[in-house]
Amino acid sequence: MTPPPFFLEDLVPGAIFRTGTLTVDTAAITAFAAQFDPQPFHLDPVAAKTSLFGGLVASGWHTAALTMRLLVTSELQLAGGLVGLGITDLRWPRAVFPGDTLSAVIEVLTVQFSASRPERGTVKLRTTTINQGGEPVLMMTSVQLVPRRTSGQPEENPEAHD
Amino acid sequence: MTPPPFFLEDLVPGAIFRTGTLTVDTAAITAFAAQFDPQPFHLDPVAAKTSLFGGLVASGWHTAALTMRLLVTSELQLAGGLVGLGITDLRWPRAVFPGDTLSAVIEVLTVQFSASRPERGTVKLRTTTINQGGEPVLMMTSVQLVPRRTSGQPEENPEAHD
Repeated sequence: MTPPPFFLEDLVPGAIFRTGTLTVDTAAITAFAAQFDPQPFHLDPVAAKTSLFGGLVASGWHTAALTMRLLVTSELQLAGGLVGLGITDLRWPRAVFPGDTLSAVIEVLTVQFSASRPERGTVKLRTTTINQGGEPVLMMTSVQLVPRRTSGQPEENPEAHD
Repeated sequence: MTPPPFFLEDLVPGAIFRTGTLTVDTAAITAFAAQFDPQPFHLDPVAAKTSLFGGLVASGWHTAALTMRLLVTSELQLAGGLVGLGITDLRWPRAVFPGDTLSAVIEVLTVQFSASRPERGTVKLRTTTINQGGEPVLMMTSVQLVPRRTSGQPEENPEAHD
């Protein structure tokens, strides 16, 4: 059973949503790196030992892509899907190592209705991806496009407005 | 012949670097999406027709990963590799469609020496990824960690300082 998706009217600042978990292994880290970020500290466990990271770590873009995977399958199912307009802040406070299990917490920061586009608006979300020790590995603030349930059409669900 | 990598002392604000090109096809778009961003407009050409995008488009995180691929193999080879501390702005002004050929331009915005860490500093880069029509598909501002050539040790390349 998939819960009904959220429209703009359903989202309030301060709301928190959680994701499932996923585990990343050496093969996944090196496969992503070979395709998108072929640097020794993402590809070669031996060369990585003498790098800044002290061992093989996932590309930051791999961590970002895994975070997207967690978001798409999270409790926060948005009507219209997850359509990002932009990111205003993206950091990787700690590297992701082979065997790490990641999950994310999503907080609604602001909800913005549009005067010119009554059928939709935007929501600003803060996403924090953590490892199995609760340490943040990625933090980002994103702006997502979200449809309104009503846009001057007859009310389908009046309770949502009270 | 790989040119020597750039140290912090070699980078000046306003410098521009270019990347090669790469072309993204439907198979690559749907393979990335299946793994990291399984939404209909990234996975299913038929369902994508009725989406906001009017057709199958690459995940924004796929575009970001492809941009990283372009950067890692660009003219701007940094000593120590491309180690991103964070992104202060990331936007996708236009979607990437199957068959698009991407390239990027990298501009050095600022160069920051560190008082507390004489062996390294940071550089702020603006990266613009464009399609074959010159239209921007990704714009981001990133902060990268870059080693100094000298950190109180004997000069190896005095010319770089005059």
